[in-house]
Amino acid sequence: MSDQSQHRPHTPVLDRVTLPSDLKGLSDRELHQLADDLRAETISAVSVTGGHLGAGLGVVELTVALHAVFDTPRDKLIWDVGHQCYPHKILTGRRDRIRTLRTEGGLSGFTKRSESPYDPFGAAHSSTSISAALGFATAADLGGDPGDAIAVIGDGAMSAGMAFEAMNNAGAMKTRLFVILNDNEMSIAPPVGALSSYLSKLYAEAPMQDLKQVAKGFVGLLPEPLQEGARRAKDMLKGMAVGGTLFESLGFSYVGPIDGHDLDQLLPVLRTVKARATGPMLIHVLTKKGKGYGPAENSADRGHARAKFDVVTGEQKKTPSNAPSYTKVFAESLIQEAERDDKIVAVTAAMPDGTGLDLFAKRFPRRTFDVGIAEQHAVTFSAGMAAGGLKPFCALYSTFLQRGYDQVVHDVAIQRLPVRFAIDRAGLVGADGATHAGSFDVAFLANLPGMVVMAAADEAELRHMVATAVAHDDGPIAFRFPRGEGCGVEMPARGTPLEIGKGRVMREGARVALLSFGTRLSEVLKAAESLAQRGMAPTVADARFAKPLDRELILRLAREHEALICIEEGAVGGFGSHVAQLLADEGVFDRGFKFRSMVLPDTFIDHATPEAMYRSAGMDAPQIEAKVLEVLGVPVVGMRAGA
Amino acid sequence: MSDQSQHRPHTPVLDRVTLPSDLKGLSDRELHQLADDLRAETISAVSVTGGHLGAGLGVVELTVALHAVFDTPRDKLIWDVGHQCYPHKILTGRRDRIRTLRTEGGLSGFTKRSESPYDPFGAAHSSTSISAALGFATAADLGGDPGDAIAVIGDGAMSAGMAFEAMNNAGAMKTRLFVILNDNEMSIAPPVGALSSYLSKLYAEAPMQDLKQVAKGFVGLLPEPLQEGARRAKDMLKGMAVGGTLFESLGFSYVGPIDGHDLDQLLPVLRTVKARATGPMLIHVLTKKGKGYGPAENSADRGHARAKFDVVTGEQKKTPSNAPSYTKVFAESLIQEAERDDKIVAVTAAMPDGTGLDLFAKRFPRRTFDVGIAEQHAVTFSAGMAAGGLKPFCALYSTFLQRGYDQVVHDVAIQRLPVRFAIDRAGLVGADGATHAGSFDVAFLANLPGMVVMAAADEAELRHMVATAVAHDDGPIAFRFPRGEGCGVEMPARGTPLEIGKGRVMREGARVALLSFGTRLSEVLKAAESLAQRGMAPTVADARFAKPLDRELILRLAREHEALICIEEGAVGGFGSHVAQLLADEGVFDRGFKFRSMVLPDTFIDHATPEAMYRSAGMDAPQIEAKVLEVLGVPVVGMRAGA
Repeated sequence: MSDQSQHRPHTPVLDRVTLPSDLKGLSDRELHQLADDLRAETISAVSVTGGHLGAGLGVVELTVALHAVFDTPRDKLIWDVGHQCYPHKILTGRRDRIRTLRTEGGLSGFTKRSESPYDPFGAAHSSTSISAALGFATAADLGGDPGDAIAVIGDGAMSAGMAFEAMNNAGAMKTRLFVILNDNEMSIAPPVGALSSYLSKLYAEAPMQDLKQVAKGFVGLLPEPLQEGARRAKDMLKGMAVGGTLFESLGFSYVGPIDGHDLDQLLPVLRTVKARATGPMLIHVLTKKGKGYGPAENSADRGHARAKFDVVTGEQKKTPSNAPSYTKVFAESLIQEAERDDKIVAVTAAMPDGTGLDLFAKRFPRRTFDVGIAEQHAVTFSAGMAAGGLKPFCALYSTFLQRGYDQVVHDVAIQRLPVRFAIDRAGLVGADGATHAGSFDVAFLANLPGMVVMAAADEAELRHMVATAVAHDDGPIAFRFPRGEGCGVEMPARGTPLEIGKGRVMREGARVALLSFGTRLSEVLKAAESLAQRGMAPTVADARFAKPLDRELILRLAREHEALICIEEGAVGGFGSHVAQLLADEGVFDRGFKFRSMVLPDTFIDHATPEAMYRSAGMDAPQIEAKVLEVLGVPVVGMRAGA
Repeated sequence: MSDQSQHRPHTPVLDRVTLPSDLKGLSDRELHQLADDLRAETISAVSVTGGHLGAGLGVVELTVALHAVFDTPRDKLIWDVGHQCYPHKILTGRRDRIRTLRTEGGLSGFTKRSESPYDPFGAAHSSTSISAALGFATAADLGGDPGDAIAVIGDGAMSAGMAFEAMNNAGAMKTRLFVILNDNEMSIAPPVGALSSYLSKLYAEAPMQDLKQVAKGFVGLLPEPLQEGARRAKDMLKGMAVGGTLFESLGFSYVGPIDGHDLDQLLPVLRTVKARATGPMLIHVLTKKGKGYGPAENSADRGHARAKFDVVTGEQKKTPSNAPSYTKVFAESLIQEAERDDKIVAVTAAMPDGTGLDLFAKRFPRRTFDVGIAEQHAVTFSAGMAAGGLKPFCALYSTFLQRGYDQVVHDVAIQRLPVRFAIDRAGLVGADGATHAGSFDVAFLANLPGMVVMAAADEAELRHMVATAVAHDDGPIAFRFPRGEGCGVEMPARGTPLEIGKGRVMREGARVALLSFGTRLSEVLKAAESLAQRGMAPTVADARFAKPLDRELILRLAREHEALICIEEGAVGGFGSHVAQLLADEGVFDRGFKFRSMVLPDTFIDHATPEAMYRSAGMDAPQIEAKVLEVLGVPVVGMRAGA
């Protein structure tokens, strides 16, 4: 602690602020200082905790201006995605806990309703803020909570269909509503899509300096806003709008672009629109991700997400890894396959780094497609390419695949098109918490007719599953793998296609069979080893497939054991449920058979380390061992704690 | 048959056409006659089969022009939604089966890959066509199937985020691609949203007559297209574009608006863009839904979907109903509740008629929100209103809720916001077939922590469930009900909130307990009555809740019977899987217990009558009875066939 506290920055104005109401007493000059303090405090905090740095630094001035001008929490300030909210958290009564960010029991790395009344709507997936803000604005109109609604949304997030749907609806409803377009030319990866080019054109055509004069002109007007007629206000706002016809086409008034790091522009513009706006208004703000911290500004991703780091040098304190990450194994395996099959193409939805497709893109730029934050389109675009004879790998996080679910059903599964789904971040993900957990994919995929669903037990298996997906051309196939590092197993030089619907037995034992689906296998094997040492060695099998099930293997395990325990990193309704359905249909339960299915518990699990999350989910080796003993009727008291 | 054939229209040119290649030999004058023939044949066919009439009539000339100009099936013609495809089917080798539309074993009411090579990408859910077309165009670029890709998409479908995502991507990729915006100011309901106002402005500013001249000017140029330089072609196309900056913002070239019923405009414009386009191009075509058939043109929905009808009068031959539809019961019940609770609001995604919210809107216009074809936004907008203190009922078909799944997880369930989901068309839906089946909602909702999931067994239950949803303010709640009429049970004057997580016993019996979730209850009761007459009366219970489960009831049924059979109108992973998980956890299987879970089979079930679909799914009374006998070990041979 002493090591950390000696790096605490000098923050004289911030030290006088506990809640946003404290900003009302500050002069504009003091607000400038507050922004500087807030930036220093944000850098200091993230150096201790790790987390999203660049996005927060990009909105320091905007955060100060919004809280200075609007009346939060009465006014509903909604940060899209939410990973830029650290400065907001510092200003809204959470400074004392800011160095607990993303740790167990600490602050969430995103906005969260249960954490603070200043977080009226939680986020973590992008592009939801305009819909939510329109909901609040509508509720206020109809006698619900009063107050203005303000959505702050990045240019990347604006490319998602959901944001368009909300704009289209808000523009027609004409409800008073503020959308701050935080245009930093950088969502996570560099932006893609036509909208991004359009935005670049907008600000190329309107140098910010000009607007600065216009914005400054407001200051003189502010003391007498009530004397101004509505028409004059409208003219004034129009005078600021030098582009933005796309947004105007959608029924929004447009103001901008303005320099999002200049409080002399932000404050008067926000004060004016707050005083005058009658309908939906889009304020186009230009910011720089990582602003004010050299090591972030100068890095390729502008300091998007950082491990703990040294404030002076920016050097990250990453622990050395023992095994390659699953993401990297996926990418390298796909590159290997693509070297030999020119029909293989890859699709990402604005996550080239996160999915490893940045590596694929380096090797095969023409065969890589980053479609933007657009999972619905990503899936059906892949389906179209499959129908056209290519072999598309659609690489998405499990939690984001939820955005394309209807497309998986309607465009892929019903048409039996051979789209390959590479599902990263399956299972519990650690510091990103419940919003990023990949808990539901097995359940929502394995009941689709014709879908093949695999889970990799380790990184070598993942390589084989990539090869399996390439070879499987008779319908869709999905393979899931977790966040983080592999198990350190020996890697095959190349993947070999697995037989569809066939599992493998890892060790033969007696009485109890443990049937694992996915990376819990290593914990299952640990539990088995411990049981073996106590003379109760169980059989262990790796199912590999949740669909089609390995009926032969499962029914054999049922015949030859008195109990079968399934383990998976997913919610009920998935692998274990399909096994239960098989056993019921086959009458296995009729004669008495001990069946258990270990699944994720029926709660959303808050952020912590993945290990702690799996422990709390009841899914580590000691708990698997305990389940075996319970089924066997052996008292668990004698069992040692810890793995 | 003789009655039908005597109404067959005189179609001299159509009679010479079997496949689109036959159009290549026709003069433009003959193509005009072909369009007239095709319209008459479409009306005649739908009068026999029922189905989507208005949409097809709106694109008769467009269908002729597209097949005359492009080279299908080498060129990929993709009809968005697909319900306008009847004229297309008539021209593409399916005229001989056109009077089997939407009947068992007959043609699908939508495009379908397995039906014809002229349907390169099936549809039924809207707004997928641009993504699919971009997929085909990309595949052609990378050595897959060659040919142009053409998407035909309505103005309503264009309001969906997915279409925007695809435009944003296509505009940036600059791939040659044709998007025909079929602007008929009428998707199913009148259009909503800012985009629709924008489109109206576009053609208000550009009277079609002017364009007609421009279009006609092309004809003279056509013999020497190869002599024209690329720049001149570009100028020419620009000359036609009198608006469309929104689309140009997204990187598309824009042509239009042109009269979609005038082949003298359609043919030269399509010929020109086919010869000259280098990148993505949007052709804005104005059409009239129901065009050329008075009774459709003059009806409020322009003949969107029709039962069989009399060609001369347009009168529909609907069979009289015995009970109110579930949809109507939902709407009337919600109106009742809303009379007494002014916090209740209702949200539909472009389906006011289909969901019954047209009735709600008549009574409470300010409390009804039609957000357009925008399920993602519909869910999060509802979540925002719930967070703002209202009681939103988000009314969607089961199959379309798939579009908002991530929003259900991320914005509603994780935040425990009390959004009420009214899920219509749950289960098998009949003539609309597999794409509209509501098979997966129980599985994908019941594993979400904190979600309450109900299914109505009859229309009285539905009324109670609406009341239950109003009363439940501690998190999200969903209730599902099927397409079609209720069972004719006596209706309570008002709904009474049910106790959350409590089922009900319908009849007490012995040995076997049948536990139904949803409207299969009536078939279960029929089966039970038949068994009772044979001296094997089972217990029958209605679970009402898939989540939370009625543990007490289920465990009692397990204790007091030798077998428990679950029945639901959904895929594996849903209600029965949750029951299995409970029984396993409680060790019920350990001692020997006969458990079965009757779920929808692992296939996509083609269109037929709902009764035929449930029979093929193994879920009618005789099959439930057979399952009981099988579990009891009684030979089934003696069982009578039929219910």
